[in-house]
Amino acid sequence: MFQQLGLIGCGMMGGSFALALKRAGLVKRVVGYSKSPSTTDRARQMGVIDVEAPSALLAVSGADIVLIAVPVAATEATFKSIKHLVTTNMLIMDVGSTKRDVVDASRRALREQVGCFVPAHPIAGKELSGVENADVDLYVGRQVVLTPIDRTGAVQVQQAVDLWSALGCRVVKMAPEAHDAAFAAISHLPHLITFALMNAITGQSAGKDFLSLAGPGFRDFSRIAASEPTMWRDIMLSNREELLLQSKQFQQALQALELMIQNGNGDALLERIEHASATRANWSMSKQQQ
Amino acid sequence: MFQQLGLIGCGMMGGSFALALKRAGLVKRVVGYSKSPSTTDRARQMGVIDVEAPSALLAVSGADIVLIAVPVAATEATFKSIKHLVTTNMLIMDVGSTKRDVVDASRRALREQVGCFVPAHPIAGKELSGVENADVDLYVGRQVVLTPIDRTGAVQVQQAVDLWSALGCRVVKMAPEAHDAAFAAISHLPHLITFALMNAITGQSAGKDFLSLAGPGFRDFSRIAASEPTMWRDIMLSNREELLLQSKQFQQALQALELMIQNGNGDALLERIEHASATRANWSMSKQQQ
Repeated sequence: MFQQLGLIGCGMMGGSFALALKRAGLVKRVVGYSKSPSTTDRARQMGVIDVEAPSALLAVSGADIVLIAVPVAATEATFKSIKHLVTTNMLIMDVGSTKRDVVDASRRALREQVGCFVPAHPIAGKELSGVENADVDLYVGRQVVLTPIDRTGAVQVQQAVDLWSALGCRVVKMAPEAHDAAFAAISHLPHLITFALMNAITGQSAGKDFLSLAGPGFRDFSRIAASEPTMWRDIMLSNREELLLQSKQFQQALQALELMIQNGNGDALLERIEHASATRANWSMSKQQQ
Repeated sequence: MFQQLGLIGCGMMGGSFALALKRAGLVKRVVGYSKSPSTTDRARQMGVIDVEAPSALLAVSGADIVLIAVPVAATEATFKSIKHLVTTNMLIMDVGSTKRDVVDASRRALREQVGCFVPAHPIAGKELSGVENADVDLYVGRQVVLTPIDRTGAVQVQQAVDLWSALGCRVVKMAPEAHDAAFAAISHLPHLITFALMNAITGQSAGKDFLSLAGPGFRDFSRIAASEPTMWRDIMLSNREELLLQSKQFQQALQALELMIQNGNGDALLERIEHASATRANWSMSKQQQ
């Protein structure tokens, strides 16, 4: 049980966290700050936060738990703006989709207080953003990846595990690098691929005609291409090393298939397609992801 | 109205065609042949066909309409086996996903009778194959692409348009090359990409762990990776030229994005993601595809 949540970023992710914490009776008071005053105002009117803070720093003042729910690119600036009021017994978390950059930023900005910070990635989201779309059930049944480092306080890690578990999440712990490699492979690269394919198609004179023939397979495959551009630019730049590494491995696998096609090597091609097809057919989302 | 349909290949696609033609009152009698006698037998028991033919050639005997619904790789052999009973007033169609190879095979095998053949690609399908999964409604509301060539009979083209329209399809005519380029871009390449990505992930020691974290975005993106391997090997080999051309253009678009990521060129990256995202957000399947 916490006394006061300092919520920095009152959007869909942060707002949903505040609502869930309140419903679970895990916090007494929520003090919120958003870059846009109208967002903070709306969050208060909606009961997502109890008190508006005039700055990120003042949202931290008096808090025993802090959630940073800002775009990944703004995380380091947020750490810097709050560091003077961070105390060693606080629990600070983020909700970002990349972790190594956030961990690096926390080391640089928080220095000796870095032990308070438990990097967190709740695997939840909606196409819709903004506090209007805050949802008390957003995190129920989801996976949350925590990526503590050696210097992270054991007390804070346990608090984080207990808190997300109490919200109905399955908590997974891994190294920041392992997290970033995994999400590069299963999320960031698929997004990059669909962006590239849409661009490759529209770059051809008959591209529009091509698209008019596309059916359900294309619809599902390309759905993630319609994701929010700014967020994905930030994720791709933040996780560039792992993403480029995964993209390289993907292109090697693709070029191996191309060579079999070029050479008419049907047996080898069939073996590789069978392997891919069986892997996908045997895969299922963990229950927490459904 | 046709007197007799010669159905070569009594699987899901062919069986559905026979059922739909019968329901629409467009044919009096269906004579069917399948490579596997048990399939032909089952088709007769199910009422998909009326009479079993002991060979592809004999399925054509006395027919005024013939549907070749065999795997793409078996199309040329089928043409050869039936050519002696093909007459100039017949309508012959196929249902294959690639068209240039089928057109080439028809020229080689049918020679002066090539005018009877109207290459057809009904854009319909299910994960399930086999005559057990024949569905009288399979083609209702779907697009059918016809790719006639100069030598195709005008009468046969009109018959084909009328027939598919009567089954509730939207008929589109285009050149075989344009068809193959379009389907390479919107269907064959997406399949190839997802096969390559599954292989790239499972080729890494942590690949299984990666997959355990994947969520709804990955689920939809990768659904087509579970497609039937033999069919996809055949499609990829049949349409290799257009597929490799599309794959090259895709990789150029991907590498352009990679360079922006590598160089931290956020503005250019955002512009390209916005373009892709807007294209996908504004795209919708034609009603016939839903």
